[in-house]
Amino acid sequence: MTSLRRSRDIPLLVEHARDGDPRAVARLITLVESGDGSLPEMAAALAADSGRARVVGITGSPGVGKSTTTNELVRALRKRGHRVGVLAVDPSSPFSGGAILGDRVRMQDHATDPGVYIRSMSNRGHLGGLSAATPQAVRVLEGAGCDVVLVETVGVGQAEVEVASLADSTMVLLAPGMGDAIQAVKAGILEIADVFVVNKADRDGADATYRDIQGMIGLGERGPGEWRPQVVRAVASRAEGIDETLAALDKHHDWLVAHGELDRRRAARAAAEVEAIALGTVRARLAALRGGTALTELAAEVVAGRRDPYSAAASLLEAF
Amino acid sequence: MTSLRRSRDIPLLVEHARDGDPRAVARLITLVESGDGSLPEMAAALAADSGRARVVGITGSPGVGKSTTTNELVRALRKRGHRVGVLAVDPSSPFSGGAILGDRVRMQDHATDPGVYIRSMSNRGHLGGLSAATPQAVRVLEGAGCDVVLVETVGVGQAEVEVASLADSTMVLLAPGMGDAIQAVKAGILEIADVFVVNKADRDGADATYRDIQGMIGLGERGPGEWRPQVVRAVASRAEGIDETLAALDKHHDWLVAHGELDRRRAARAAAEVEAIALGTVRARLAALRGGTALTELAAEVVAGRRDPYSAAASLLEAF
Repeated sequence: MTSLRRSRDIPLLVEHARDGDPRAVARLITLVESGDGSLPEMAAALAADSGRARVVGITGSPGVGKSTTTNELVRALRKRGHRVGVLAVDPSSPFSGGAILGDRVRMQDHATDPGVYIRSMSNRGHLGGLSAATPQAVRVLEGAGCDVVLVETVGVGQAEVEVASLADSTMVLLAPGMGDAIQAVKAGILEIADVFVVNKADRDGADATYRDIQGMIGLGERGPGEWRPQVVRAVASRAEGIDETLAALDKHHDWLVAHGELDRRRAARAAAEVEAIALGTVRARLAALRGGTALTELAAEVVAGRRDPYSAAASLLEAF
Repeated sequence: MTSLRRSRDIPLLVEHARDGDPRAVARLITLVESGDGSLPEMAAALAADSGRARVVGITGSPGVGKSTTTNELVRALRKRGHRVGVLAVDPSSPFSGGAILGDRVRMQDHATDPGVYIRSMSNRGHLGGLSAATPQAVRVLEGAGCDVVLVETVGVGQAEVEVASLADSTMVLLAPGMGDAIQAVKAGILEIADVFVVNKADRDGADATYRDIQGMIGLGERGPGEWRPQVVRAVASRAEGIDETLAALDKHHDWLVAHGELDRRRAARAAAEVEAIALGTVRARLAALRGGTALTELAAEVVAGRRDPYSAAASLLEAF
């Protein structure tokens, strides 16, 4: 019998993952990460598990303490008896695939706990990046019985916006003295954060950061019944403020449910996912037209000024 | 006769833009920005002008002095007798369309110079954002006889990567004490920059920033004949280092030409543009299937766990 670690037998792997076998879970996520042709089969096998977990996105600049905070959140969730999955997503550079999160051996505290799955993921090789691969990995963890999935990603580039688009609740970590509050507004973070955590709250400048972010939240226009982002202070390295963080996330989840927003968010997410897969398929087919030469030849005509890109696109679609 | 400022008569506008009428240029770029249905017609009318200008991307964090530097580069290019276009692209938040560049009245120095076109652009409302609208705006400026087009965008999110993908040469501005050199590496900037400018080089920490970035460039693997990013010091507010910056950009341009890389970059760019337009068309058609209900209904089945997203995407494409 092939070892589970190398198996491509999707039904077998899903069966073992459902029984809580961490090797099967790891193998399935590896297959997701590789953008392997088994994705449709895996998705079909896991469809029924979809939506059973709360998905929490965790983001913030390098150095704000994301791993430490995630680690403590896992501990607190385990105390409640939840099964917890952690996906540490590495938004590789679109150019070289260079890794940003250097440390892949993380959160060793929970390494021997059978109720916790921790996994680093790179989006390398995945057309559509993070947003294409992560929902499938979340489904694997849901299949394995996770009640909560934490998706952690470093807040650079587009990654934090993508993490928000796949989470039920998005938590943004700030730290004093990093000018984060201002940058948050500029980068559109204010609009994706459901909960802010000012970590390292024992350091100089923590009060200023707290006030800044509260002030900026206050400036935002908000209709009646709209969610007002919560701001929590924490010192994750001493496990301080973790219960408060969890309480803020619970409050947001209750609000999502009470306002029908959870269903709306998940419907929008599913629509975006289906659309992205469909467009990915079209893209692959367009690239393969006439043995891969159609697009190249049309592009050459555009460069030469003999054609414009719109008529070239129309020709490409005609051939399709 | 309708005023040029409001006209939708594309051939007329293109004719006037070719004659150098700034109102016609402004109107065409407004039409590009609005994502108006006249884009294909405009693209057809401008196809022959495509590729006549050198396109230089300019990016960097807020506060590094992008406007000041651009302003001085324009002055230096005008001294050479070049016609210059400047597009200041505002990568709006994908959520609210909130503007990042507050100041739209910029670079007043050149406001009365008929050899300079300056225009702020927002990518609001444009499916595909910056990357979809900007190439068309560049073509308008090429049609108006520009020899050089500077595309300036603030270095947040994905924008700087997009600016690199549409420029012949990409210039990244750094300033002392912003931790930019480190961030640059993390955000993949090192891989898109052809020229680095350490601006505000008279300030404390400028030498450290210069050394940091030189060190990081040195670490990169580079085959023989590959471009090694140039690093220039400048104090743009005193017009210092501008000639050196231009010399570095010229050197990069010469390298592009000598290595056939200019043609390769432009071909890749045109292919990406044609593909993006084609995918945009497909996306619009998928969204409109069955009066716009097809995607919603499939997404609802995914949420309910009755279907997986891959089979939903396959159904969507079948209907298409």
